[in-house]
Amino acid sequence: MDAIVNLCKHRGFIYPSSEIYSPYSGFFDYGPLGTEMKRNIKREWWTEFVQKREDVVGIDCSIISNPAIWHASGHTKNFCDPMVDCRDSGLRFRADQVYWAILQPESGTDLIYVSVLEGDDMHEQALKKAKKLAKKQGISGPFLPLSELKDLTQCTDAEVYVNIPSPATGTPGVLTMPREFNLMFQTNVGAVKDDSAVSYLRPETAQGIFTNFANVQRTSRMKIPFGIAQIGKAFRNEITPRNFIFRSREFELMEIEYFVSDIENKWEQYYDEWIRDSWNWLCYLGLDTGSMHKDVKGPGDLAHYARACTDITFDFPFGNQELMGIAARGDYDLQTHSEGSGETLHYFDSTDGRRFVPHCIEPSVGIDRLLLALLSSAYHQEMVEGSNGKSETRTVLKLHPRIAPVKAVILPLVNNKPELTEKARELFRDIQSKFMCEYDTSGTIGKRYRRADEVGTPFCITVDFDTVDGDTVTIRRRDSMEQVRIASNEVLTFLSREIENV
Amino acid sequence: MDAIVNLCKHRGFIYPSSEIYSPYSGFFDYGPLGTEMKRNIKREWWTEFVQKREDVVGIDCSIISNPAIWHASGHTKNFCDPMVDCRDSGLRFRADQVYWAILQPESGTDLIYVSVLEGDDMHEQALKKAKKLAKKQGISGPFLPLSELKDLTQCTDAEVYVNIPSPATGTPGVLTMPREFNLMFQTNVGAVKDDSAVSYLRPETAQGIFTNFANVQRTSRMKIPFGIAQIGKAFRNEITPRNFIFRSREFELMEIEYFVSDIENKWEQYYDEWIRDSWNWLCYLGLDTGSMHKDVKGPGDLAHYARACTDITFDFPFGNQELMGIAARGDYDLQTHSEGSGETLHYFDSTDGRRFVPHCIEPSVGIDRLLLALLSSAYHQEMVEGSNGKSETRTVLKLHPRIAPVKAVILPLVNNKPELTEKARELFRDIQSKFMCEYDTSGTIGKRYRRADEVGTPFCITVDFDTVDGDTVTIRRRDSMEQVRIASNEVLTFLSREIENV
Repeated sequence: MDAIVNLCKHRGFIYPSSEIYSPYSGFFDYGPLGTEMKRNIKREWWTEFVQKREDVVGIDCSIISNPAIWHASGHTKNFCDPMVDCRDSGLRFRADQVYWAILQPESGTDLIYVSVLEGDDMHEQALKKAKKLAKKQGISGPFLPLSELKDLTQCTDAEVYVNIPSPATGTPGVLTMPREFNLMFQTNVGAVKDDSAVSYLRPETAQGIFTNFANVQRTSRMKIPFGIAQIGKAFRNEITPRNFIFRSREFELMEIEYFVSDIENKWEQYYDEWIRDSWNWLCYLGLDTGSMHKDVKGPGDLAHYARACTDITFDFPFGNQELMGIAARGDYDLQTHSEGSGETLHYFDSTDGRRFVPHCIEPSVGIDRLLLALLSSAYHQEMVEGSNGKSETRTVLKLHPRIAPVKAVILPLVNNKPELTEKARELFRDIQSKFMCEYDTSGTIGKRYRRADEVGTPFCITVDFDTVDGDTVTIRRRDSMEQVRIASNEVLTFLSREIENV
Repeated sequence: MDAIVNLCKHRGFIYPSSEIYSPYSGFFDYGPLGTEMKRNIKREWWTEFVQKREDVVGIDCSIISNPAIWHASGHTKNFCDPMVDCRDSGLRFRADQVYWAILQPESGTDLIYVSVLEGDDMHEQALKKAKKLAKKQGISGPFLPLSELKDLTQCTDAEVYVNIPSPATGTPGVLTMPREFNLMFQTNVGAVKDDSAVSYLRPETAQGIFTNFANVQRTSRMKIPFGIAQIGKAFRNEITPRNFIFRSREFELMEIEYFVSDIENKWEQYYDEWIRDSWNWLCYLGLDTGSMHKDVKGPGDLAHYARACTDITFDFPFGNQELMGIAARGDYDLQTHSEGSGETLHYFDSTDGRRFVPHCIEPSVGIDRLLLALLSSAYHQEMVEGSNGKSETRTVLKLHPRIAPVKAVILPLVNNKPELTEKARELFRDIQSKFMCEYDTSGTIGKRYRRADEVGTPFCITVDFDTVDGDTVTIRRRDSMEQVRIASNEVLTFLSREIENV
């Protein structure tokens, strides 16, 4: 993970936000290569799920909207995390990330309470803390094994609660009871600063789709089943943003609401199709299939209105985590907004004359975490033969050409022969009009190859004296490092075939 | 203007935000066609100014960032509008939009004070109000001509100020003195809700470019002159959003900061180039050249640090207004952030060994107002010959094929012949893989043509019995309404040529 974060920063994929002022936790700035990669992901999604589908159209809603939307959807009331404050240190924690346990020494009846913050070595840490505490209190081991670690939301006994120490200071009795903390960012709209002016930055793009259901259905004359797609920024005031761009406070979503008939179990077919199509698309992008899994939610994990939900998870360097979700949401959202707004969000089916509130399937994926998954899949360190015959390590991003930020780099063999440079620049201009392309003259060819490998550029095109004489160039493939020689005027056709049809 | 707003709403270009809950002033939701059109504008800009240029790279910064950026740039202090409150009605106005005048009847010495809100018929309104007031006070005309209307910021005399009536209620003495109102949206980041947690939604994208100058220059190994481009949302808490999407509270910008040498007057050449390139690009998009003007700012209109600024203005239906600005900003921004952050934002020139803070040229354009200008340029109502031989009106959006949301529509002549439908759908699938394309079966061919004209679809492709027999289709051009018959397998080539190379 560190290697990826470093590569991102030093090659211009992703910088911490506002870095010169001190990085702003939970926010990131995409550099030139990250920006191109994100554009590629978005374009592929839109082409696949909007352009190529007759039954899906796109929309682009405002980030700030009438707060009535968030009252109706339940977000102002329920989109919360439970928080506890440490009165000792003034720090605030998510209650479900503070873990505690009780330890009893074999030799006595005194109980030792410990607390730790969620993390990989939670169990070890707790044990270490317990031993330290015991020693301080003059209690000697051996100890009974540590009881199961539970988070603070699982502590229902007030008596026990007052004995749990603050994870920050170790003092018991200073943690407040868990309180609900709303994750939506608030702001004030208009000149008057009172409650009526409070609005929110959307924490998801889906609600804009629901509130525009009738507008879109009517103006685009869509017939069920049909979908509305949206790409856009969303914001969540995470208390503990972490794992790089995996959980940040500002992120970008690609969401579809696919509206289907309300007839009993009719949704199941579309739900299955969207799981299949989503899975296949992720593979098509070049995600490592061996690291992808399906997590089918059980009835206990579902919201009360949900019919079913499957997550596509990915083995990130920090563990297996949700990458994409496909949820069957029943008619909950359109019903909710019908009640909230007083506008009945019905669909009239001209084939059977029925009027009903459609059900919907929601495939939803975060672009930032998808980009991180693609980088994780693509990142390789390999031993290869260097220019001097000795073996050396190369770092290579084996990104699919569709996703790679730069498609090709032009490498003039030497930089001081005008006839060669001229050829190289001519080729560069040709390619640039169609694909993101770079021109690199600095260092040995081997060094330039390594630089291109490290940012995932799939094709290195060397312009040499045969280009001047015979009008041919060598193209080196990034992954196999094979080289082929082709006519200069066939380069664009070669690239189009490799990038767009592979 | 009303015709364009109506077309936008009823054909799915742009809806008021949150419409089912009551439109939220200053915010808009782009429908399916508006979303595609906006995507086209952004893609054209990126292709022209990033992909095709070796000297420009893109970035994509967070909307929320370290508030220190906005302190350093001066936005927290200076990004303000002067506001006055009416203590009578509780309403708030921009001081520079409340106009007042003093009227003296010929027959007496009593003065009549009037106030009106900025608008087209301000002068008439003021006169009407003055006559009404005079009548009420028993003063009879004739009146001396109305003195020049001035806005409230131009009233420096407290004695006069207390006599100016509220434009809302007509009562004098109830307007507060103008106060500065910051236009940035505020929010709180993190769990703690105190001053340290206050941050802002960016009111422009440029600052993220400046703060990342060193990161981008280093990681992309850029040499001066070079530019950094960004497309993204920005937010301004306008007191009186108006003119549809022209002045809204949430909007999208396309900005470049082009960094050049600090040598005296060296910037002038690049400034001229960016004015020329920006102008040409706007023409290339199909903007009505006759409605475009250059507004070269005089020294009095420039910010203290600015060297020069030229606006490209456009004759919108509501008047001539700024569409794009090209500003020579000196080294103000990089200097400001060097001082604010303590990181020296220098550039090292290896050709002469000098280290200096570059100057910059900033071409900046709002996507929403550009989209509105393109719609204004494209909107036509024409008398044409209808299918029954009588003349009828057609509404047509003469959008450039590059910008048109849908590139082609497939029209099967009849809907009940499987061999014809099959051909039509096959062609549709072929085109759809490359271009946004629709399939329309409803109504007469004439009606379907009108529908396509109204949303600016440049090519109508009719599949008829000759398609089944001879494998040819007719393609109708939107503007000339000419029809040509070509082989089915040449349609894609035809469209590529017309859309991408025209």
